[in-house]
Amino acid sequence: METVRIGIVGLGNMGTGHAQYLIRNEVRGAILTAVCDPRPERLNWAEAELGINVARFSSLEEMCQSGTVDGILICTPHYDHPEQAITALQHNLHVLIEKPAGVYTAQVRRMNEAAAASGKVFGIMYNQRTNPMYAKLKDLISSGELGEIRRTNWIITNWYRAQSYYDSGGWRATWAGEGGGVLINQDPHQLDLWQWTTGLMPTRVRAFCSFGKHRNIEVENDVTAYVEYENGATGLFVTSTYEAPGTNRFEISGDRGKIVIEDDQMTFWRLRVPESEFNRTYKGGFGQPECWKCDIPIAGGGAQHLGITQDWVNAILHDTPLLAPGEEGIKGLMLSNAMLLSTWTDNWVDLPINEELFYSKLQEQIERSDSTKKADDYKTLNVSGTH
Amino acid sequence: METVRIGIVGLGNMGTGHAQYLIRNEVRGAILTAVCDPRPERLNWAEAELGINVARFSSLEEMCQSGTVDGILICTPHYDHPEQAITALQHNLHVLIEKPAGVYTAQVRRMNEAAAASGKVFGIMYNQRTNPMYAKLKDLISSGELGEIRRTNWIITNWYRAQSYYDSGGWRATWAGEGGGVLINQDPHQLDLWQWTTGLMPTRVRAFCSFGKHRNIEVENDVTAYVEYENGATGLFVTSTYEAPGTNRFEISGDRGKIVIEDDQMTFWRLRVPESEFNRTYKGGFGQPECWKCDIPIAGGGAQHLGITQDWVNAILHDTPLLAPGEEGIKGLMLSNAMLLSTWTDNWVDLPINEELFYSKLQEQIERSDSTKKADDYKTLNVSGTH
Repeated sequence: METVRIGIVGLGNMGTGHAQYLIRNEVRGAILTAVCDPRPERLNWAEAELGINVARFSSLEEMCQSGTVDGILICTPHYDHPEQAITALQHNLHVLIEKPAGVYTAQVRRMNEAAAASGKVFGIMYNQRTNPMYAKLKDLISSGELGEIRRTNWIITNWYRAQSYYDSGGWRATWAGEGGGVLINQDPHQLDLWQWTTGLMPTRVRAFCSFGKHRNIEVENDVTAYVEYENGATGLFVTSTYEAPGTNRFEISGDRGKIVIEDDQMTFWRLRVPESEFNRTYKGGFGQPECWKCDIPIAGGGAQHLGITQDWVNAILHDTPLLAPGEEGIKGLMLSNAMLLSTWTDNWVDLPINEELFYSKLQEQIERSDSTKKADDYKTLNVSGTH
Repeated sequence: METVRIGIVGLGNMGTGHAQYLIRNEVRGAILTAVCDPRPERLNWAEAELGINVARFSSLEEMCQSGTVDGILICTPHYDHPEQAITALQHNLHVLIEKPAGVYTAQVRRMNEAAAASGKVFGIMYNQRTNPMYAKLKDLISSGELGEIRRTNWIITNWYRAQSYYDSGGWRATWAGEGGGVLINQDPHQLDLWQWTTGLMPTRVRAFCSFGKHRNIEVENDVTAYVEYENGATGLFVTSTYEAPGTNRFEISGDRGKIVIEDDQMTFWRLRVPESEFNRTYKGGFGQPECWKCDIPIAGGGAQHLGITQDWVNAILHDTPLLAPGEEGIKGLMLSNAMLLSTWTDNWVDLPINEELFYSKLQEQIERSDSTKKADDYKTLNVSGTH
C-alpha cells in the first residue's frame, strides 16, 4: 500500500476538523476518500466542502463494504466508538478512534479483543501525547531523572462550561447521551497523560463526585479522586467545570525532586542527591537535601491531531510503533469509571474494576434520568482551541 | 493591673524562645517573673541566662501558688497543655498555651470549659494569625471579595524531616510521646489557618494517612484529607514530611475568582462579574468570565510569637479582643483528630467527631506501640526559622 484511503465516521465537531486537514492533504501518505454520517445536512456539507470525489454514506456498514477505504477514523458520540470500531475491524479495516475509547470498560475490552484478533492498526486520538511538554515529562520520569515517584497531584479545574454550553444539545451531560460529565467529556487527555507520563496505574481509587453542581445537569461536574499505587505512592486528581478561572497544575514528586507543570511551563526542582540517600546519611536535625530549581526547555508545539493521524498512517504504511495504541484507551476510561463507581458505592474501588457492577450502576443512572438521547439532536459547534 | 507578671511552663524549644524576648522586655506591659521545668539543667540555664530575679519552680502547682505570676505561658509537650491550663485557670491565672491545644479533643473541651468558667484571658500561640499574608486572605474572604467559597486546596508538603530529626528524642513521633505525627507537630498552624481564614469548618472528613512512610516512626507522616462544607464546597489538605522540596500552596476558589498563596506571594484571579452571574446570563458556547490577575500587596512582616504574647497581655490589661482565643484551638485539633479517625475506621467522619471513639483508638495505638514516653528525654534544640 502506498496511500491509505481514509473514511471518517461522524461529521460532528471533531470529524469535521479531521476532514479539513485531510482534504488539504496535510497527512503524508493519506487521502480522504469517504465520510459517513446519518444526518443529511452533514453529508450536504461534505459534498459542498470536501467535493464530490469524497464518497458519502449514511451507514457505517455500507462504507465498510464499499471498498473505498483502508482505514476509518471514528468521531461519533462516545457510546458508539467500540461497536463501530469492531464493525470496521471485522471488515479488515484499520481503525483510529476519537477519545474517549468508550463509556464503560466492558465495551472497550471487547473492542481491544477484536483489535488484537484483527491484526489491523488500531489507534486512539490521544493528541496530547504529541505535546512536547508531556513527552518531556514522560522522558524525565522513564529515564529515572525524577527517581521513584512518591506523589502525583493534578488539579485540572479549567474546563469552564457555562449552562449555555450544556443547553446547546439535549444529549449533552446526560447519562444516556454521553455517559458522564467532566470525566468522559473534558478529562480524557488528562486521565491518559496522568498514567502515561508516570507509567503508573493506581491499584485502588477513592473518589468523590458531585453531580450537577452549580449547573442544571445530571452528570458529574466536580471530582476529587484519591489513588494509591503499588509502590506506596499516592495521587490526587481534582477536576470541575464551574470554577473560573480554573487551574491546570500537575505536580509529581519523586525521590530526586519535584516536577511542576503549570502555565505552560515545566519546573524541575532537582535534588543534588536523592532524598532517600540524604535521609540515610544525614545526621543533623532540620536539614534537607540541596535543591536546584531548573527551568526545563520544551521544544516546538507538537503535531496534535494531525500528528496522531500521521502516526497512525505511518504505522499502516511502514509498520512503525504507535504513539497512542488504541488498546491503551481503556486505562484512562478505567480511571474515570472507577471514580464514578467509588462515588456510587461510597467505597474503595480496586483496579481493574468490576466491569459488570459499573455497567449495572450506569444503567441505573440512565433509567433514573429524565433525559433521553436524541441522535439527530447532535449539533456541530466551532470548538477550535477547546480540545 | 499595670504589668502582667508572666510565668513560663516548660523551657524546651518554644519556652526558651519566649523567655528570651520577655527577658529583653520586648512585650509592653509584661515582665517575666518565673519559669517552671522539671529538669534541673533547664532551671540552671534559666538562672544563668534569665537572672536570679526570675523565680524557678520544678512544679506547676508551686508556681501557681507562689503569687509571683498573673498569667502563664504553657510550652510543655502537647499532651500536658490542657491539664496544666486547667490547673492555672483554677488558680485564677490567665493562660496562653502553645499549639496544639492538646492531643485529643475531649481534653481540650474540658480546658475550654474551665476557661469559660474562669473568666480569665485564655489564648493560644497561633502566631501565624499575625502573618499579614493570612490576615489579608481572611480579609478578602470575610469582606466578600472572593465570593462564596467553592473549593479549598492546601498542599503543605514542605515539612521535610530526615530520620535524624525523629531519632533526636525517643518521645518524638510516638503515640505516647507526642500523640501523632505531621498533623499534630508540623501542621497546627495550617489546620488553624485553613478554617480561620475561610471561616469554614468542614461538616465531614474522609482522610488517608500513612504511618512511618519512608521513615522509621510509628505516627502519620503523609496525609491526604478530603472534606465537605455545609455550603456544598469541598476541600483538600495534603501534607507530608518526606518530600523534598515540598510544596506550600494554598488555593481557594470562590464565586468571584481564585486566590493562590505560594512562594510567599498572593495572587487574586479576580472575575469582573461573579461566576454565578456570568453563568446565569451568558448565552454563548465556550466562553468564560473576564478575569484579572491581581498581585495583592502584603504589608510588613507580622509580629509572630511576640505579637501573640503582646495581644494576650493587651487583653489582660485593656480587655481587648484576642486575635487567637484559646477556645479556637479545638478547631484545628478536631480536623487533625478527624483525619486520623477516618483512616483508622476507613470511613467518613462527621464533625464534631466522636470524642470517645477517637480517644479509645488513640489508646489502642499507644498500647500497640513499642515506644514509651520518657519525659526526661525531652531535648532542647535550636529551632529558629522552623516554626
